Amino acid sequence: MSNPLSKPALKPERPWFSSGPCAKPPGWDPGDLKGAFVGRSHRHPEGRARLREVIETSRRLLGLPPDHRLAIIPGSDTGAVETALWNLLGHTGVEVCAWENFGLTWLHDIVEQLRVPDVTVHRAASYGGLPDLSAVDFSRDVVFTWNGTTSGVRVPDADWIPADRDGLTICDATSAVFGMDVDFAKLDVVTWSWQKALGGEGAHGMLALSPAAVERLAVFRPDRPIPKVFRIARDGALLDEVFDGFFVNSPSMLAVEDVLTALDWVERIGGTPATVARSRANLDAVARWVRATPYVEFLAEDPRTVSPTSICLRFTHPRFTALPAPEQAAFARRVCARIEENGAGYDIGAHREAPPGLRIWGGPTVDTADVEALLPWIDWAFAQTLGEYA
Amino acid sequence: MSNPLSKPALKPERPWFSSGPCAKPPGWDPGDLKGAFVGRSHRHPEGRARLREVIETSRRLLGLPPDHRLAIIPGSDTGAVETALWNLLGHTGVEVCAWENFGLTWLHDIVEQLRVPDVTVHRAASYGGLPDLSAVDFSRDVVFTWNGTTSGVRVPDADWIPADRDGLTICDATSAVFGMDVDFAKLDVVTWSWQKALGGEGAHGMLALSPAAVERLAVFRPDRPIPKVFRIARDGALLDEVFDGFFVNSPSMLAVEDVLTALDWVERIGGTPATVARSRANLDAVARWVRATPYVEFLAEDPRTVSPTSICLRFTHPRFTALPAPEQAAFARRVCARIEENGAGYDIGAHREAPPGLRIWGGPTVDTADVEALLPWIDWAFAQTLGEYA
Repeated sequence: MSNPLSKPALKPERPWFSSGPCAKPPGWDPGDLKGAFVGRSHRHPEGRARLREVIETSRRLLGLPPDHRLAIIPGSDTGAVETALWNLLGHTGVEVCAWENFGLTWLHDIVEQLRVPDVTVHRAASYGGLPDLSAVDFSRDVVFTWNGTTSGVRVPDADWIPADRDGLTICDATSAVFGMDVDFAKLDVVTWSWQKALGGEGAHGMLALSPAAVERLAVFRPDRPIPKVFRIARDGALLDEVFDGFFVNSPSMLAVEDVLTALDWVERIGGTPATVARSRANLDAVARWVRATPYVEFLAEDPRTVSPTSICLRFTHPRFTALPAPEQAAFARRVCARIEENGAGYDIGAHREAPPGLRIWGGPTVDTADVEALLPWIDWAFAQTLGEYA
Repeated sequence: MSNPLSKPALKPERPWFSSGPCAKPPGWDPGDLKGAFVGRSHRHPEGRARLREVIETSRRLLGLPPDHRLAIIPGSDTGAVETALWNLLGHTGVEVCAWENFGLTWLHDIVEQLRVPDVTVHRAASYGGLPDLSAVDFSRDVVFTWNGTTSGVRVPDADWIPADRDGLTICDATSAVFGMDVDFAKLDVVTWSWQKALGGEGAHGMLALSPAAVERLAVFRPDRPIPKVFRIARDGALLDEVFDGFFVNSPSMLAVEDVLTALDWVERIGGTPATVARSRANLDAVARWVRATPYVEFLAEDPRTVSPTSICLRFTHPRFTALPAPEQAAFARRVCARIEENGAGYDIGAHREAPPGLRIWGGPTVDTADVEALLPWIDWAFAQTLGEYA
């Protein structure tokens, strides 16, 4: 722990720690987007080639199984998840694993909106825990997030998922893809967005489907209205062109160019192993500080589940924990505001649905030196704020 | 008509005539997006301020009625229209006016997806005509496009809509807004996107609701699943924050900055009257050429309905019209390819669902001098292609 009473001398060079949209790759410059296919039809073969390039480069860099299909979907990761839920759910019973805001969002969709009649919910005992994953029934469809972005709790691996299963595994992996090792072979539906680990733009999501998920579209036609922007099948067959860069909606070709430069950056630094290592290094920097710092802990209870991308922290100082909940929230906001006023770290407050505390994006576009430079500012801001409550 | 046998000497400076995404405003440079709020949370007050600025500047420049609410919606204009249909339809019977691809898309949504039981369809007799608008029953909800982008047929005005009506008028106005005078007071729901007349980016739509449309959300709760990205009400009340820049999904803040520069440009050249005048001038240039050219006509049958933004043309040359339909399509593609190969005009082919021919975007971001420079290239390419069929 640094001296918390004096302002740190050093500031992060790129003080961007938002969990979405996340920091741009190092060296990003909008002038690099000069060659963007703007003012043109994305249906032109050249526009379509760029959309295909996003799909094919992502597939290659991630090592997606060759028989998984991959599409770009409007509405960021949320749009991609909802495309999957609207098209696929209802054929079997559904198991939902929910342990923070996004899991609860999909639970709401499944129960309140889609009204799937047979749903088993696996909840965590607390915001910071995981449900008992050994209780999940894989003869049914399973919906879960790989990384719970708002609690910073991830599944440790995919060992709990059987290779041989009857239901589909539907995984919201948005803050995991490119930031941690994801076992795609265990996932029948995987979604992510450009705005997380790639530092790309919002409003565009990615949807990968395994052969089993594609097969489901043939045997099951849901009796519900599916908006055109989420329609991926017709008459029981996958709309192949959607998975071939045609895109059901108009994408932003500026955002397409931007994510292509981000994918180039991934390739240049050594591919997904390098991006995963960068996230890991960011978590390690925070973990060293947490061990040395008496007033802070990870929100994640089990060390194996601590997310290296959305790093969520809670304050354990007795004078903080003694405060009533709304004052804890105000305290945490004050800490963030002090850091922000000094231009030392932006958007590090916990998600509004999470317990008060901090959330520091540690994805690959963030430099570890910047994470290290941020931490003394937290010490300083926490001490200053605690002083106000003396 | 220019000499069709020799290649024109002059090329359009900006040969971008795509009907979406459309040409960027003159002088556009991605370096101007340097100040974009990227790598940051769009929920931060500063991010939210920029989203609000898009809403408030659009409202002011368009002269939207003060009691209309305005939101940014994911999924471009399609997302905005489907948000309206999914949230509002089914309370009364529905009248659908359909005369080209997009009207037919909404008709499909309403009948096949939403399965609204009581639908009256007003179709045009031909691709190029309008339905009989005097037959529309305004005691029911009415869905129509202001400008049929794929046939280039627009409603001439809003005189056919009574000021006093019981149903809602739901208008897809995406290629009309900023390109022609739209009578917003006659519209309860208006949708558009940034990628049309503003030359902005895809994946983002705008949705305006009149007080009557907001009231509908209170008295009618549709019994259908609505994806989160399209949810604009809860427990019968409008989600105010969505209409206050909160955005239900993650937008691209690069696209937000881009549309703000486009709105600045609109302001600088004199506001919506100036953008409407620019579109009008583009149509006038094409109309002069059509009058002087024996082999081409507007697809729109009634001169009062010719769109000044999506200018759709058909070839009338007897050797063209004598061809079987697939050969007509190949002929038209050949004309476009010749022009494109010379870098004289991009994306001017008719929409894939429309009759073979040309579609030239004449929205305000296109310079009239460029339209004028394109036309001799059409003469040349048409003559060359006709030669191949001799």
